[in-house]
Amino acid sequence: MSSTVSERDDVLSRLPIRDDLRGKVPYGAPQLDVAVRLNTNENSYDVPDEVIAAVVEAVRREAKHLNRYPDREFTGLREDLAAYLGHDLTADQLWAGNGSNEVLQHVLQAFGGPGRTALGFTPSYSMHPIISTGIGTAWVDGLRGTDADVFDLGLDLTVEQIEKHRPDVTFLCSPNNPTGTALDLDVVRAAYEATDGVLVVDEAYAEFARPGTPSALTLLPGRERLIVTRTMSKAFALAGGRLGYLAADPAVTDALRLVRLPYHLSSVTQAVARAALWHADVLLATVEAIKEQRDRIVTDVAALGLPPAPSDANFVLFGGLPDAEATWRSLLSRGVLVRDVGIPNHLRVTAGTEAETTKFLDALADSLLD
Amino acid sequence: MSSTVSERDDVLSRLPIRDDLRGKVPYGAPQLDVAVRLNTNENSYDVPDEVIAAVVEAVRREAKHLNRYPDREFTGLREDLAAYLGHDLTADQLWAGNGSNEVLQHVLQAFGGPGRTALGFTPSYSMHPIISTGIGTAWVDGLRGTDADVFDLGLDLTVEQIEKHRPDVTFLCSPNNPTGTALDLDVVRAAYEATDGVLVVDEAYAEFARPGTPSALTLLPGRERLIVTRTMSKAFALAGGRLGYLAADPAVTDALRLVRLPYHLSSVTQAVARAALWHADVLLATVEAIKEQRDRIVTDVAALGLPPAPSDANFVLFGGLPDAEATWRSLLSRGVLVRDVGIPNHLRVTAGTEAETTKFLDALADSLLD
Repeated sequence: MSSTVSERDDVLSRLPIRDDLRGKVPYGAPQLDVAVRLNTNENSYDVPDEVIAAVVEAVRREAKHLNRYPDREFTGLREDLAAYLGHDLTADQLWAGNGSNEVLQHVLQAFGGPGRTALGFTPSYSMHPIISTGIGTAWVDGLRGTDADVFDLGLDLTVEQIEKHRPDVTFLCSPNNPTGTALDLDVVRAAYEATDGVLVVDEAYAEFARPGTPSALTLLPGRERLIVTRTMSKAFALAGGRLGYLAADPAVTDALRLVRLPYHLSSVTQAVARAALWHADVLLATVEAIKEQRDRIVTDVAALGLPPAPSDANFVLFGGLPDAEATWRSLLSRGVLVRDVGIPNHLRVTAGTEAETTKFLDALADSLLD
Repeated sequence: MSSTVSERDDVLSRLPIRDDLRGKVPYGAPQLDVAVRLNTNENSYDVPDEVIAAVVEAVRREAKHLNRYPDREFTGLREDLAAYLGHDLTADQLWAGNGSNEVLQHVLQAFGGPGRTALGFTPSYSMHPIISTGIGTAWVDGLRGTDADVFDLGLDLTVEQIEKHRPDVTFLCSPNNPTGTALDLDVVRAAYEATDGVLVVDEAYAEFARPGTPSALTLLPGRERLIVTRTMSKAFALAGGRLGYLAADPAVTDALRLVRLPYHLSSVTQAVARAALWHADVLLATVEAIKEQRDRIVTDVAALGLPPAPSDANFVLFGGLPDAEATWRSLLSRGVLVRDVGIPNHLRVTAGTEAETTKFLDALADSLLD
């Protein structure tokens, strides 16, 4: 049977879906066929031939036995992730999922859920509230911003809101998405002291941080309610492989085992991620080039009179646009796709290759003349 | 930091996990290094060389662009799944996830969840209650069985319990796991009429059904609250690839889009599953051999005085054991791993290769002499 969109909508309106889902639209940036795609903070560099060969060989080794379920404990992958992160982490402190979204969902299933509350500081990663409410966790939209910097998350403001809302799960994001700025570890320490719940520091973009930016991984010893999440989608150029992970106390991973679906990571996913980790040096070689383009964007949009937020990530949020949506369309008409994250007068752009960055900056300068 | 099990348990007891998780143990059959593994209903046949080559080539084509997020709509995969299932199904009626467990979780997130109820008929697939309660759905353990057949799910008993509990989600399982018997479609029709909620028919083992067993897929036209789930883990010999799916009204898939995590299916998972589907004839060539061994088990355990349930699946549940746990251990000591599904006096065994089946039957005969 085939059906029209309006017939589908009619049926959907009759289906017994949850009331809180009625009228919602699926999450996700437009997947458009555009020459320069700088809207989802992907790594613009293709996977190098050396890594392609390693990935293919890794899958070849698994393929014969795909009739068997995967290692439910993904032991080898956890060992490799621990080795990559360093900081004396061991495999029993690591956990992984099909993207960091799934890892965060496990955290919320174990520590959030019905009757519990999660707190984040807006604007931040927009999936945090979606994943929280998707499994019945009440979401509190915390505030960030000072008079001096509307996007800055200061220590006092953080502690004050944690003490007020007493959340079961608190999200910090460093570097923060979509603003791009890393968080002072003093804020993480203070937030941890202020809460009885778990504290998640989302470090999806950590590898792009400016020199001297410490990771919350350094705070793990002695903090059993602290969770640091990472992803292979950004610096590792493995968005298509879907591998997110976290580091925490071993007891936290035991808690996550209680809620994960068994065999959630396929043998192929485990093999591909491990092959990529074994070539971390090759894959991360693009990070410096991306940071250069990021810093170039910061400089050049400022010169265009569009104030950027300081960025420790592979993207830049910039403001000063009279009509952000019009600029977004103008850029798209020039073959450049960026992200309208819903902050008035602002757009977010991923730092791509030098050529892509040039096309973006040229298109932006042109669009200001529209 | 490394830690002992008891230290981890101490920390776990202090962590603010949900009360309903306290004291629970992770779901999952033992993953033991045993010569003959017949405990998780895997397909015992290795993936054939022809399919290995196709899988490897499919991954090679994707590998260069793994820096990009996957097709969030997995359009090609949905088209291939629709073509495989037949019954005039179209791609917009198909949905997939990392194993049918994830697909079922999406169904529960959209139609179940906090404040809602799911009903299943025990004994059945033990993940149904776990996935339901894992996202806050109240679970009702329905009964099956008649005087004549303790595992049979009759029409009257089904309708009676649906009308009593008025569930938002009802699970039927055909062939049922762990009993192995397919369900009369009259029961499905009556269950659908009896409920205002969605009706899930879990057909994970459908390809192994005895001749003349119809699929609930034939009932989809005109039944917008009916969902039929399938998996590539069993007949397709792709348990390690983790690909479960469902067919339903297109509006149901629209509802599931509201709760799925974006990009939940990796580019690699999509490519591997598609390569397997393109070689369905080769992969499904093992099904007849497996059914022969299944029928052989049914005959032979009956001859040993151990009554089997009639099986339309790739496994057999048999009873008559004075001490099922002792027999399980006795079989394990003889190098054969089967499943103790928690039904007193019963064990479940997967139909493997002819050699594996012989080893199991010999070990079982020996163990009865213990």
